[in-house]
Amino acid sequence: MSDATPRHDGRAIDQLRDVRITRNWLDHAEGSVLVEFGRTRVLCAASFTAGVPRWRKGSGLGWVTAEYAMLPRSTNTRSDRESVKGKIGGRTHEISRLVGRSLRSVVDMGQLGENTIVLDCDVLQADGGTRTAAITGAYVALVDAIETGRAAGHVAKKASPLTGSVAAVSVGVVGGRAVLDLDYVEDVDADTDMNVVMTGDGRFVEVQGTAEGEPFDRRLLDGLLDLATEGCADLTRMQHLALEDSEREVAR
Amino acid sequence: MSDATPRHDGRAIDQLRDVRITRNWLDHAEGSVLVEFGRTRVLCAASFTAGVPRWRKGSGLGWVTAEYAMLPRSTNTRSDRESVKGKIGGRTHEISRLVGRSLRSVVDMGQLGENTIVLDCDVLQADGGTRTAAITGAYVALVDAIETGRAAGHVAKKASPLTGSVAAVSVGVVGGRAVLDLDYVEDVDADTDMNVVMTGDGRFVEVQGTAEGEPFDRRLLDGLLDLATEGCADLTRMQHLALEDSEREVAR
Amino acid sequence: MSDATPRHDGRAIDQLRDVRITRNWLDHAEGSVLVEFGRTRVLCAASFTAGVPRWRKGSGLGWVTAEYAMLPRSTNTRSDRESVKGKIGGRTHEISRLVGRSLRSVVDMGQLGENTIVLDCDVLQADGGTRTAAITGAYVALVDAIETGRAAGHVAKKASPLTGSVAAVSVGVVGGRAVLDLDYVEDVDADTDMNVVMTGDGRFVEVQGTAEGEPFDRRLLDGLLDLATEGCADLTRMQHLALEDSEREVAR
Amino acid sequence: MSDATPRHDGRAIDQLRDVRITRNWLDHAEGSVLVEFGRTRVLCAASFTAGVPRWRKGSGLGWVTAEYAMLPRSTNTRSDRESVKGKIGGRTHEISRLVGRSLRSVVDMGQLGENTIVLDCDVLQADGGTRTAAITGAYVALVDAIETGRAAGHVAKKASPLTGSVAAVSVGVVGGRAVLDLDYVEDVDADTDMNVVMTGDGRFVEVQGTAEGEPFDRRLLDGLLDLATEGCADLTRMQHLALEDSEREVAR
Amino acid sequence: MSDATPRHDGRAIDQLRDVRITRNWLDHAEGSVLVEFGRTRVLCAASFTAGVPRWRKGSGLGWVTAEYAMLPRSTNTRSDRESVKGKIGGRTHEISRLVGRSLRSVVDMGQLGENTIVLDCDVLQADGGTRTAAITGAYVALVDAIETGRAAGHVAKKASPLTGSVAAVSVGVVGGRAVLDLDYVEDVDADTDMNVVMTGDGRFVEVQGTAEGEPFDRRLLDGLLDLATEGCADLTRMQHLALEDSEREVAR
Amino acid sequence: MSDATPRHDGRAIDQLRDVRITRNWLDHAEGSVLVEFGRTRVLCAASFTAGVPRWRKGSGLGWVTAEYAMLPRSTNTRSDRESVKGKIGGRTHEISRLVGRSLRSVVDMGQLGENTIVLDCDVLQADGGTRTAAITGAYVALVDAIETGRAAGHVAKKASPLTGSVAAVSVGVVGGRAVLDLDYVEDVDADTDMNVVMTGDGRFVEVQGTAEGEPFDRRLLDGLLDLATEGCADLTRMQHLALEDSEREVAR
Repeated sequence: MSDATPRHDGRAIDQLRDVRITRNWLDHAEGSVLVEFGRTRVLCAASFTAGVPRWRKGSGLGWVTAEYAMLPRSTNTRSDRESVKGKIGGRTHEISRLVGRSLRSVVDMGQLGENTIVLDCDVLQADGGTRTAAITGAYVALVDAIETGRAAGHVAKKASPLTGSVAAVSVGVVGGRAVLDLDYVEDVDADTDMNVVMTGDGRFVEVQGTAEGEPFDRRLLDGLLDLATEGCADLTRMQHLALEDSEREVAR
Repeated sequence: MSDATPRHDGRAIDQLRDVRITRNWLDHAEGSVLVEFGRTRVLCAASFTAGVPRWRKGSGLGWVTAEYAMLPRSTNTRSDRESVKGKIGGRTHEISRLVGRSLRSVVDMGQLGENTIVLDCDVLQADGGTRTAAITGAYVALVDAIETGRAAGHVAKKASPLTGSVAAVSVGVVGGRAVLDLDYVEDVDADTDMNVVMTGDGRFVEVQGTAEGEPFDRRLLDGLLDLATEGCADLTRMQHLALEDSEREVAR
Repeated sequence: MSDATPRHDGRAIDQLRDVRITRNWLDHAEGSVLVEFGRTRVLCAASFTAGVPRWRKGSGLGWVTAEYAMLPRSTNTRSDRESVKGKIGGRTHEISRLVGRSLRSVVDMGQLGENTIVLDCDVLQADGGTRTAAITGAYVALVDAIETGRAAGHVAKKASPLTGSVAAVSVGVVGGRAVLDLDYVEDVDADTDMNVVMTGDGRFVEVQGTAEGEPFDRRLLDGLLDLATEGCADLTRMQHLALEDSEREVAR
Repeated sequence: MSDATPRHDGRAIDQLRDVRITRNWLDHAEGSVLVEFGRTRVLCAASFTAGVPRWRKGSGLGWVTAEYAMLPRSTNTRSDRESVKGKIGGRTHEISRLVGRSLRSVVDMGQLGENTIVLDCDVLQADGGTRTAAITGAYVALVDAIETGRAAGHVAKKASPLTGSVAAVSVGVVGGRAVLDLDYVEDVDADTDMNVVMTGDGRFVEVQGTAEGEPFDRRLLDGLLDLATEGCADLTRMQHLALEDSEREVAR
Repeated sequence: MSDATPRHDGRAIDQLRDVRITRNWLDHAEGSVLVEFGRTRVLCAASFTAGVPRWRKGSGLGWVTAEYAMLPRSTNTRSDRESVKGKIGGRTHEISRLVGRSLRSVVDMGQLGENTIVLDCDVLQADGGTRTAAITGAYVALVDAIETGRAAGHVAKKASPLTGSVAAVSVGVVGGRAVLDLDYVEDVDADTDMNVVMTGDGRFVEVQGTAEGEPFDRRLLDGLLDLATEGCADLTRMQHLALEDSEREVAR
Repeated sequence: MSDATPRHDGRAIDQLRDVRITRNWLDHAEGSVLVEFGRTRVLCAASFTAGVPRWRKGSGLGWVTAEYAMLPRSTNTRSDRESVKGKIGGRTHEISRLVGRSLRSVVDMGQLGENTIVLDCDVLQADGGTRTAAITGAYVALVDAIETGRAAGHVAKKASPLTGSVAAVSVGVVGGRAVLDLDYVEDVDADTDMNVVMTGDGRFVEVQGTAEGEPFDRRLLDGLLDLATEGCADLTRMQHLALEDSEREVAR
């Protein structure tokens, strides 16, 4: 397929879906964002609590962690609840760990001090790219939670717990060409699927590429990394817009 | 306290909070409602599938069931996920069973035919009355799911799977007087807490009253039942409005 | 059916089954009762321990809780053990919580002091009404456990940890009329099933009514509450007889 | 200590505690026995069902299995429920397997035909020797269940599913001498503890001896086996008496 | 079968399989042994840690415990992992407890001091006798772990934590005659299967005999005990050889 | 640090540890390999069974899956067993999934036919790189299992179930420079850790890179990919040597 042929939803190969970041979607949480990548909709709630888990007490360091989950009917057909099954699946574990690591990569734990932030990323509707939307939204919720914690006196006035920003996007090989931000239909068809997490200054935090069908060569890998770099830069701009805005909602 | 003294949020003792019923909040589910009772916000997704569980096969009867859960940060302080704890708590079990029974009370399983509808009620934000909001919203999602099933040819054209409508409200004794539709602040203070589920024609499906503090006498019980009857009638009207509307959202 | 037509076992509509309360059925427990409502047989063991759970330490308050369970062959056909299944079912959870709340409603935790009483209610044989028998028997075991705790010096000599007594009975609509204390055969047939927990002075602690078939109207609900009030008063008398008796067994 | 010195409860070294076997203690089970070895009290319920587990279907063979459990307050101090802990402990597993193997040792599975018998042995009160009491009582319940199954036409009229009887007793070394049927006080003190399961014709089904303190030599082992042989013979006589009796209860 | 007829693998009835004890098979563990009884191969790792579990703190006593497990493909056909099933089976529990008790029988906990040793016995390949191989190998690993603990200063220089040695072997009745150290083929055929654990000075720690088929009489039991005594004496010699050797491996 | 400075164990930056691949380490498994990368030692057992899981029946396609686990004392300090904890951790899940995907990438499921191969990769000793060693070893075991299945007539004589070979290696940034095949000491220190799975013809199957410390830029990423390509080519050669050899063991 030529790179100029539009994708099944009309997008160009290097085009993100409509992205929408709605801050303060919840009343209780110290930070919260409803993030939408097209029809993918993830609720990110950041809970700030003074103090750290026992194994970290007295270290002077804070802690940031994340939990990812999908509502049973976020998907096309209903999935059983993991709470009902009594155990968490491998995919859920994997993504929770990825989101946590990604956010920790931009936190200076010493500057955060002995405080804990838990990011709950619950997928209300899934249409591909839920983990990358989760990371992108959770970063914004994290910023708000830190400021809430600072306002409450738990974070020092002059502390800079954040060393940068972080965003994520998926790229993949669909119909033989590299495309940005796959939706569910493209994801199912993709030969290669890669999730890339990057800092706002363009460095890599995570690169996770998997050949679902054919193994991929170095040239293709390079192309995917180029696309992802561009996509993350776009998302970074939207995160900053959302955070600058005094209002609740920013859309692309 | 005199019955004329306004409540902490200015409501009269027999006044519901602002109620909002948003249909089709999700794209995939056969029926879906975001229901709001004030700041309480519950996402009700109805999943229609042709066929029934094994134990019901060949009976000619359908099946309707429900699962209730709270997002970890729906509450004031974060709660651990039941999927992470590996088991479902008693309260969750209890409410899931209540929601399921309540909806089954208005379904004619023979008219539904061998089809299954699962109602997932996920609390996105909790401020008291989550189970009654869930029942009230799930009924609307159920209606939509049945019609989706009918459109897909799974429910007979002339079948009437619904024998009526169902709605629910909480009532309680706060500061010595009976009040309708308690929010979290009132719930914590209540001496008696009662959840009442009623059909649209004013009959009882469930009455669950608990003395949290002082046991209550028959006169007080009678007063609570009166208030609940009135509240459920109001909610029934709002459900009908929401269902008549061609648009997505109905607010009180 | 006329109210004068006898029930399938010959009882009048407002007649309890034969009730038997045998105290001190166990040698180790601080209080224990084998309670029988007809063929329903529940062993209630009250364990008194000095001290309270961690979350209650230093409060000066005691704690009372309950666990309900059924032996696998208490029922007509054998059920799997919840220990083997590795999780507790919703019904078990619900009833354990109900029993605990009911007993706490007559305990003054300050008078009890920092002591814990656990009521284990194990159904040895089930023939309807196991939860109401459990509450009725557990109250008697609770009284004995408190006195054992007082004799051991853990409860102050002049303390009055009990604010009253508590008993419970089921009522329901069978064959169109309200009847008291349903056995299993009636329970299966009932359109409405209600469990009522009352204090010895005739006030309500819990009212849990469910329409298994037809929803019920207010007049029927009033009739059920009348019957339950009468039944609980009878059970209260039997509890007092059992407690006054120096011997082990009291039967109606 | 001389062999003539009485034990802490006055028994001779080769004397069983008072044994009581009450048949048909339950109304629903196909066979049931309340067995008492002194203060140890075990309820044995035998559930007969036509058919066998899937892995045995079509084999023409029956299946017999057992589950052992203790009520939380059967012991001196309350133990947590295994259902609440969500897993079965090693000791419970071990004893369930022992009871099952012991009963299977006297069953001709071909004669039983494709029927299943589950023996539930629930300890209502524990004072040492619960597993041996369970085996001894379960055998009697098993006999009754087979006859119930025969009466219902599931077992052939002329079939002989039982190849003999089985009973069990504990022996141990307490204060340097071998004694029969240890109660809890002796069990705690014992250097060696041995459970012996024997058929009615005096052969061994299981021998499980453990040095809790000092390892034991061959002479001591021989003495223990002699005592156990004698004790099992006594129990066999009591089982036969109980089964011959038309009435419900047999005591030693 | 005459006692002179060779067994299916050519062994005499009182002959062990080739036994091989390889010390220090692992680099990290404080003591480790790969023990082989013919094709049965068990990796025994002894982990020494200063300190004891909470319930033993301040007692001055140490603690020794064991965990036994089989790799999924140690057997002829693959078994599911217990970690995947989410629970440990009865057999695994039973054997872990047996190994722990056996090793504790030769440890003077006061001499060990407040230190803990965990013996992990993982079956890499199973061909009968895995639990007896585990005990025999674990003893050697235990000796090494104690010396490692002593070298690290956790065990007093002059302390004697070991009161003797311990070894184990299986015996059984195959084809009507008593044989020593059954492999899998014999185990499947055996009428009686007995595991015997003995100290180096010839006393019994555990005797666990089970009639898989026919119950066994006293004469047969005596014969099995004689064989086991001989077998344990041989294994004791091999353990001592292994421990005397400066090199890593000792084979029979 | 200059690229010429030797690593803590003397290796060059692009040098693998000593690699050893021992085939047929087990007697029962259809394919088995003990693979060693330096002190890392992983036992890979391939179990071939005719037939596929229910969800794949009738598809004509085979199935290949993997389970990874660590023995409790494979590590420096003992870890609790996942079977004892009753749940599998996120890391274990993640690696099991990675190994399964990697091997499936070189299997033509149609050529395999309706047969299942399970790869059990149990880490006997861990010193970094356990997942890459597991993949590298499992491929060899897979080849042997397919041939065993072919010999048994389950795989067609002329079928080519393998489309290529697969191997894996870790690379990382330690002390500022990219190095190949990190051991535990280097892993702990690494700023970036990347696992790369490649086919024998030099294409990528998985690329999983994580910034443990500083995010990494594109140039560094490119360097890591170069190193990994070289390392996988070396491992591919060793796999082929091992498979060509008629003897059991191949070392680098």
